[in-house]
Amino acid sequence: MIYFPAMAKSSRKVVVGIDLGGTKILAAVADSKARILAETRLDTEAKKGLSKVMSNVKIAVLKALWKARTSLKNVTSICIGAPGPIIYKKGLIVSPPNMPGWGKVNLKDRIKRIFKKPVFMENDANLAAFAEAVKGAGKGMRNVVYFTLSTGIGGGIVLDGRIFRGKTGGAGEVGHMVIEKEGIRCGCGGRGCLEAMGSGTAVARMAQKRAPKSSRMIKLAGGKRSNITTEIVGQAARKGDTLAKNILREVGGNIGIGVANIVNILNPDIVVLGGGLTNLWDIIHEPIMRAYKNQVLEVPGAGVKIKKAKLGGYAGVIGAVLFALDPK
Amino acid sequence: MIYFPAMAKSSRKVVVGIDLGGTKILAAVADSKARILAETRLDTEAKKGLSKVMSNVKIAVLKALWKARTSLKNVTSICIGAPGPIIYKKGLIVSPPNMPGWGKVNLKDRIKRIFKKPVFMENDANLAAFAEAVKGAGKGMRNVVYFTLSTGIGGGIVLDGRIFRGKTGGAGEVGHMVIEKEGIRCGCGGRGCLEAMGSGTAVARMAQKRAPKSSRMIKLAGGKRSNITTEIVGQAARKGDTLAKNILREVGGNIGIGVANIVNILNPDIVVLGGGLTNLWDIIHEPIMRAYKNQVLEVPGAGVKIKKAKLGGYAGVIGAVLFALDPK
Repeated sequence: MIYFPAMAKSSRKVVVGIDLGGTKILAAVADSKARILAETRLDTEAKKGLSKVMSNVKIAVLKALWKARTSLKNVTSICIGAPGPIIYKKGLIVSPPNMPGWGKVNLKDRIKRIFKKPVFMENDANLAAFAEAVKGAGKGMRNVVYFTLSTGIGGGIVLDGRIFRGKTGGAGEVGHMVIEKEGIRCGCGGRGCLEAMGSGTAVARMAQKRAPKSSRMIKLAGGKRSNITTEIVGQAARKGDTLAKNILREVGGNIGIGVANIVNILNPDIVVLGGGLTNLWDIIHEPIMRAYKNQVLEVPGAGVKIKKAKLGGYAGVIGAVLFALDPK
Repeated sequence: MIYFPAMAKSSRKVVVGIDLGGTKILAAVADSKARILAETRLDTEAKKGLSKVMSNVKIAVLKALWKARTSLKNVTSICIGAPGPIIYKKGLIVSPPNMPGWGKVNLKDRIKRIFKKPVFMENDANLAAFAEAVKGAGKGMRNVVYFTLSTGIGGGIVLDGRIFRGKTGGAGEVGHMVIEKEGIRCGCGGRGCLEAMGSGTAVARMAQKRAPKSSRMIKLAGGKRSNITTEIVGQAARKGDTLAKNILREVGGNIGIGVANIVNILNPDIVVLGGGLTNLWDIIHEPIMRAYKNQVLEVPGAGVKIKKAKLGGYAGVIGAVLFALDPK
């Protein structure tokens, strides 16, 4: 993240972007040109419940404002990126999977009550997509589809420079397109979803199931099969472990099919791939592209770019800042 | 098709819509309110080559104008719906599969030269989607996805009342999303595409392969397995043939997965299903909906409608008329 601390002046109007994740809260303060003046990171402490999370959000924002040498009175608007399904009309987030016990929460109202400022709320994957479309790998492009390849697979669609939400704000759930009818059961209840076959969870699950007792992956996991993580599979693959490489190739191939489906359906300018799994880009890029090219049609595929995300873990909070400045 | 012949007056400005198909040409003349004044239908005679097809297009249009008691001088614009991939910038259609030997044809220029009028050219599935969105099952809705379930599976996407074409005009190829990784080979070269598993061709192929010698379907096909068509499978199913019913249920299930994928990705207001296979709506509707509901997520699926197309075989030409009036 690039800072412009010299830009911070006490009377300058600023916006606040918040990325509320299951494990951490990122808050950023930016000027009217979306230049980040300061940023803070705090544990979400999701397990301690909603009030604790709200209090942590408040602390993160106030700290960021202090670091930016400004204060709440200069904030013109706030955008919070929230995980999981949002009911936009009501400002609700609905039982986000990584916020245990939340049920339906009127997050927008709660943030408004804390800061007494105009608040926008947006799905975090949509904000990451927006950030990549405006400032990241899709900069200058019109239609951008973003995949977040992480524990799960989320996504966001930006068309003509605007987040495309669909009828009920549910668009972009690219992780739940079926790529293998009657395939493995997905967390969503469906079968053969991309998320079940192309996510970090899929990598770990395959390795836990397939690794022979003598495997390097089990060693790296401290001898315990169930402790094998995506990171361990990546480490083992980089050290030449054939099974680890094959698992990542298979998962990459599944991602490539999902990307080809999206390109055949939407013919975007670019598909941007982000999320933790792209830390293994050197290994997964080639199988993604091979499967993609096998499946994409000539016309919808012509000139479409498939790129790694540029903004990394900051995409969400940058998206929130951009959206706070220009909500659309 | 509803006519308004009384509306036709010699000085009234009109538009022409043309639906150029592999077997027939439909031409319609409409007034400024998109009311159809007259319509003609002519064999395409695609096998006789490009010049013959162009001459048939000319005859169809002139006949329609004559039937509408008007003439070319009152035509303000023409829109032709063409099969297969289009390169919009150049006005080219590229080797449409049902126009043997065409290669790249500058159809737009050819139509312009014949009629000396402003000409628009659009993919036929896009025009059908547009017509269903404006006047058909999706009337009054904002975001409409249309599937044409026919020999192949095509599609069109209308967002905010406009045809969504994507970067190179290739958007909407819903038939080539993979729903079964490593599944059956598709005509496009890919594997497990919806088109290979949910089209009329898939129905006929399954029946030809699976029908036992004593099958009603083989009898209906004059004793020749390879003559079993989708229509025959439908007839047999209606007469209670279990295999025929099961094949249609399986194909319906595959379509339902494809529809769920689209809804999870785009969360449209409605998915409209058209094309010849929907003549069997009474049989395929239930398995489509069952598979769809198994796979769609709660938020993107909330309130989304799945409906049969309303305009039947006229969707393309009505779309062409609407587009000629308001090209967007």
